[in-house]
Amino acid sequence: MRVGVIGAGQLGRMLALAGYPLALGFRFLDSSADSPGGQIAPIVTGAFDDADCIARLAAGCDVVTYEFENVPVTALARIPTSVPCHPPVEALRVSQDRLYEKELFSRLGIVTPAYRSVETLRELEIAVAAIGLPAMLKTRRLGYDGRGQRCLRRAADLAPAFAALGGVPLILEGFVRFDREVSIVGARSTAGETRAYPLAENIHGDGILRETRAPFKRPALQRAAERHLGRLFDHFGYAGVLTIEFFVERGRLVANEMAPRVHNSAHWTIEGAATSQFENHLRAILGWPLGDTRALGHAAMVNLIGTMPDRDALLALPDVHLHVYGKTARTGRKLGHCTLVAATARDRDRLLRRVQRRLRP
Amino acid sequence: MRVGVIGAGQLGRMLALAGYPLALGFRFLDSSADSPGGQIAPIVTGAFDDADCIARLAAGCDVVTYEFENVPVTALARIPTSVPCHPPVEALRVSQDRLYEKELFSRLGIVTPAYRSVETLRELEIAVAAIGLPAMLKTRRLGYDGRGQRCLRRAADLAPAFAALGGVPLILEGFVRFDREVSIVGARSTAGETRAYPLAENIHGDGILRETRAPFKRPALQRAAERHLGRLFDHFGYAGVLTIEFFVERGRLVANEMAPRVHNSAHWTIEGAATSQFENHLRAILGWPLGDTRALGHAAMVNLIGTMPDRDALLALPDVHLHVYGKTARTGRKLGHCTLVAATARDRDRLLRRVQRRLRP
Repeated sequence: MRVGVIGAGQLGRMLALAGYPLALGFRFLDSSADSPGGQIAPIVTGAFDDADCIARLAAGCDVVTYEFENVPVTALARIPTSVPCHPPVEALRVSQDRLYEKELFSRLGIVTPAYRSVETLRELEIAVAAIGLPAMLKTRRLGYDGRGQRCLRRAADLAPAFAALGGVPLILEGFVRFDREVSIVGARSTAGETRAYPLAENIHGDGILRETRAPFKRPALQRAAERHLGRLFDHFGYAGVLTIEFFVERGRLVANEMAPRVHNSAHWTIEGAATSQFENHLRAILGWPLGDTRALGHAAMVNLIGTMPDRDALLALPDVHLHVYGKTARTGRKLGHCTLVAATARDRDRLLRRVQRRLRP
Repeated sequence: MRVGVIGAGQLGRMLALAGYPLALGFRFLDSSADSPGGQIAPIVTGAFDDADCIARLAAGCDVVTYEFENVPVTALARIPTSVPCHPPVEALRVSQDRLYEKELFSRLGIVTPAYRSVETLRELEIAVAAIGLPAMLKTRRLGYDGRGQRCLRRAADLAPAFAALGGVPLILEGFVRFDREVSIVGARSTAGETRAYPLAENIHGDGILRETRAPFKRPALQRAAERHLGRLFDHFGYAGVLTIEFFVERGRLVANEMAPRVHNSAHWTIEGAATSQFENHLRAILGWPLGDTRALGHAAMVNLIGTMPDRDALLALPDVHLHVYGKTARTGRKLGHCTLVAATARDRDRLLRRVQRRLRP
């Protein structure tokens, strides 16, 4: 069986690495043959929404999926109807727009920060009057890893922030004084089976995920997060892995965004859970039984960003697993990650400090 | 960095799957492009000892290794001296001949069954007179998975067995009334660092490995096996993974054979040990720090031989990991394996029985 994957970044690469032991074949579509996925599987090089490229990607595939939420919705429409595409295009469409996302969350009873659509400076002033300051002004589309955002702290910030971001549809979101950031990742198969991983706690820096620890054991929050995931699964008639990122504010979950794909905050599942998110995504879109999602211990994942640390120093640490994506180093770029797994949270945190010391240049 | 691998069977495929997360590239050499390795990495198709093929394999590689011990020694001699080849050719040469192997074991103080070289029926009779019956008559070279062997139980068996196997150099080995079969797998790096996995217990049927359980915890046997491994490492100035298979007879180890490569009896290390044998082989031949070899729990590995079982029935079991090699089904052929890991030996054995029930046609 063959899986076509739109996008050949590290997420696609790790999907193929999870699928090869199941005898699955892969084909990618991306702009560069030397992309992380293209280094380990055949790749069609071209634009995501080029009809000919999409046809060559899908030819002979049993299913098509995507690993990147900025794939144009129009690209998915070009996939021949004989080849199923999961997750559903509607989930992709909603996830591409912060306004649609929050409107859907609200409709499904999933708490979000206060928000207002903003297209003009006048609308921004009205939105700020309603929501208050501080607040976050964001582009509705094409933001990731902290790009396309400004924090408004005082009235004088409005005009410069609007000048920097405006010209495209924006959203103003109430500032959440969160205690933590967590995410839930789960899968629903085409057969309707669902599983969720334990909540993970995430630490961001400059808008980029730096570190994840899991499991984040708060039974009430876990139940709430799984309930939210379930509502989205049902709403979309979903198949594949789905992620929701939350703030934890005064003990309750406030939804920030969703991603209709495998997610950086669940890379720890490769070594730290009974079945990885990548394998479960594949099982889900193929309609196979889902794998067990429980944590095997206490895991942490650290992203390797911008420059590669000394490889041997990391490899010499027991219980540390290195994942390098085959990308050229560049400031702010995710080049790899390492995962560590320990029997207790305390041992995990101790090992994490040792890893972090080795990551400092 | 790029690793050239002579042979593109499942062992080569699993080497590449272990190396991709470390950003290693691979190139295989084997007779068929559709071999398990060739399905997931570039492959040079041709004969192992074809000088042109070897040159194309080695071009641009940082190291060459092999995944199959029936590679002609002459093939390794054709690798350009600018590209190191590990494990050493001398280990390959010895492992290809049961007589050389046992002579070396004896020289290094590693107990073997009684043995005699046999080239004629007359020599066979003399050997039987010395060693007694029952005994095993084997071809010295090119035997694997039980091929090229006959058990001699009575005098009348000699002539037919010799007729079936003779014409090539043979070895007669004393019959070992073993209690168990175990194997040790370990690695030595080009930097001289060594690690050994816990002993594994193996069950063969029709000369083919059927099942492995690990760790097989007998501290005295573990120490003895590691001592033997260390002597072979030193003798060869070894780099890479090395396997020794033993009989356990009245509480002591009797060496049966060695394999200068990753081994079926350590497939359990992918999920069942801190670092897999495949990753450690790569680290060893590249001179990187070796990874921790301890067991993470209690594991069992079951080979999928001849026909593929029902995939979904296996995937539905928690803690079972499926590995399929992408080969066409054929009687006696290893098509894949599954590994299961549990917290206790008892839970492992219970899960193993559930797996075995699902494997019966």
